Amino acid sequence: MERALQGIRVIDLSHVLAGPTATMLLADLGAEVIHVEPPRGDDAREYGPFVDRIDKDRSGYFISLNRNKKSLVLDLKQAKGKEILRELIKVSDVLVENFRPGTMDALGFSWEEVRQINPKIIYASISGFGHETLPDYANRPAYDVVAQAYSGLMSITGPESGPPCRVGSSIGDIVAGHQAAIGILAALFYRKSTGKGQRYDGSMVDGLFSIMENAVVRYTVAGDIPKALGTAHPSVTPFQAFPTRDSWIIIAAGADKLWAQICKALGRSDLAEDARFRTNPLRTQNREALVNILTGVLTRRTTAEWADVFEKDGIPYSPVNNVKQICEDPQIRFRDMLVEIDQPGIGKMKIAGSPLRLSETPGKVYRGAPALGEHTEEILTTLLKKKKTEITALRNEGVIN
Amino acid sequence: MERALQGIRVIDLSHVLAGPTATMLLADLGAEVIHVEPPRGDDAREYGPFVDRIDKDRSGYFISLNRNKKSLVLDLKQAKGKEILRELIKVSDVLVENFRPGTMDALGFSWEEVRQINPKIIYASISGFGHETLPDYANRPAYDVVAQAYSGLMSITGPESGPPCRVGSSIGDIVAGHQAAIGILAALFYRKSTGKGQRYDGSMVDGLFSIMENAVVRYTVAGDIPKALGTAHPSVTPFQAFPTRDSWIIIAAGADKLWAQICKALGRSDLAEDARFRTNPLRTQNREALVNILTGVLTRRTTAEWADVFEKDGIPYSPVNNVKQICEDPQIRFRDMLVEIDQPGIGKMKIAGSPLRLSETPGKVYRGAPALGEHTEEILTTLLKKKKTEITALRNEGVIN
Repeated sequence: MERALQGIRVIDLSHVLAGPTATMLLADLGAEVIHVEPPRGDDAREYGPFVDRIDKDRSGYFISLNRNKKSLVLDLKQAKGKEILRELIKVSDVLVENFRPGTMDALGFSWEEVRQINPKIIYASISGFGHETLPDYANRPAYDVVAQAYSGLMSITGPESGPPCRVGSSIGDIVAGHQAAIGILAALFYRKSTGKGQRYDGSMVDGLFSIMENAVVRYTVAGDIPKALGTAHPSVTPFQAFPTRDSWIIIAAGADKLWAQICKALGRSDLAEDARFRTNPLRTQNREALVNILTGVLTRRTTAEWADVFEKDGIPYSPVNNVKQICEDPQIRFRDMLVEIDQPGIGKMKIAGSPLRLSETPGKVYRGAPALGEHTEEILTTLLKKKKTEITALRNEGVIN
Repeated sequence: MERALQGIRVIDLSHVLAGPTATMLLADLGAEVIHVEPPRGDDAREYGPFVDRIDKDRSGYFISLNRNKKSLVLDLKQAKGKEILRELIKVSDVLVENFRPGTMDALGFSWEEVRQINPKIIYASISGFGHETLPDYANRPAYDVVAQAYSGLMSITGPESGPPCRVGSSIGDIVAGHQAAIGILAALFYRKSTGKGQRYDGSMVDGLFSIMENAVVRYTVAGDIPKALGTAHPSVTPFQAFPTRDSWIIIAAGADKLWAQICKALGRSDLAEDARFRTNPLRTQNREALVNILTGVLTRRTTAEWADVFEKDGIPYSPVNNVKQICEDPQIRFRDMLVEIDQPGIGKMKIAGSPLRLSETPGKVYRGAPALGEHTEEILTTLLKKKKTEITALRNEGVIN
């Protein structure tokens, strides 16, 4: 199988999640990603769950994000470490970093400095509020939960009239990572015609604000301040989770004709004639009454029993799968979305696969994640043409590992 | 300013959200996106909020997603409509669709048929469960809320021990749209070297499963079934929203040294010495006790008062902004994330901007969204070289509009 990004080399100075998400997407597409780690390793190596015991090379969290990458340990506080990074920059296509703004400048690797070293490089930064900011925001620290709250996404997520809720995964980092991958790919495409490098300045807050969907225009056009609605949709009804005898089930009447089919499937064709529920706007207006009636019907059977009914009738439905259920789901397995890797030092383990299902150059998990510094020697020898004696000296000085 | 995708033409047969998100990202990067709509228009033209009155050309929802695109109205049920689509495919680089699987085949535009017309085309499909599926899933209908529930994301989003919650925006469509843009860009890059087209087969369920972060390995490595935790993080504490005197505030102790700083800022340096809270694992284990203590302190002042304190001390914090607050936020304005467009027939209105902040080829909102069929004549005349008389005849037959 061919690889879309064959021959593209990425210097990955990033850590934990936003940057590593971007470089994971690029590595899955076949780029050579060299994860440059400080001697203590990417912080994510300290995040659980661990396989058997706490160890920098046994973090399931790190492994799932860093499959397909190489690891080179470099101390960037030492002059010789900086020199090696300079050499790497000369032979690379992309640099990715997600330090707090100012850190790369302090290290001597700002965009202005790096483009002097390699004018064709694509230099991608991801931070909480961005690098180009109002003065107050220049060094403001941000984590995912800060971006979820600041962007407004948290204010529309959670139960109706309840406390705000965080999206259960770190969507602030993850969306920013996807957008950085888009920016980098667009820049690589542009560079292929023009030879020009450029800078990408991504922000987690910008990223989440850009995916607020209709919430933004509801305010700017209509003056509404959207609120959280549990599982319900602000303008489509019924389109939410209902309790069943044993758990929950989703019903999604995304098109008007589905409503009559749903009523019939529930054995309540009378509801299709009910004047309060005849159209989607009416159903949305009378949501509370409708939800009460449907809850009364749906709690009489189990989720599996209702699933059989809806499946037969072609009604859009879903159980609310927990993580065990989805990991064991046959369709997820069929789509290669849970893949087994043979992780050196650990053996077989399962991580999420790539959703980038291209026919000729699919996103793929080629191999597991690197042990800390696993590729230091290989990269110094083959890419930077260092001699064994130089490598030994650098190692003795703690510049590499 | 240059455009990364200058010269790339996209036939956009998609509707509502997942497909239009992908083509919005491509259009913001400078691709020419021709949104081919049925005579009744993209369903999203019927979604509110509307500017002043209900009208297919006045949906704020449609406008925000379809800025920068062209609209061509084509009846694909008629043979002459299919012929025009065939002509468009010949002169295009990318085709995007998000019909239910089977629809494009029934229209005569399956991947196998389209690649016969143009072997270099990149053919991107997005659906709920994918096109290559187990037999039971081949035609299964899915909307965003179905994907959120099926993927497991809903089971980890919501209050602790409360009902499951939907992410407040349609993240199933949006993530799948971002991933499709990544797949298309990778395929365009690959095509530039090889001349080969290919197919992308994206799924909303795959997309959300791929962004579950540590939840997947927590099950596959440790056997845990992760649950919803409100705003809290499963393994970092304190890292969540707390009530204040007037609303909420986020505190994020993402690194260990921040804990002592937080205690000091709260005037409770004694807590930094408390044996129950000394390390992050201990704070996570004793979260309930810690949250009770911090809530007692934080509810004594308003969010704005605490923000001043945390700002001065460099502590990662955030108010839980609502949509009005974030739309009026100076930093969002500074980053061009809320842009004013001059929408023909409407005038000035504000929509979310592009987060793709590239220095040479930034994602940009060049213009508003097209009225239904606004570019039909232009495209038929200039791109397909039709004569006025042919266009009039096609219009009289209801093939175009």
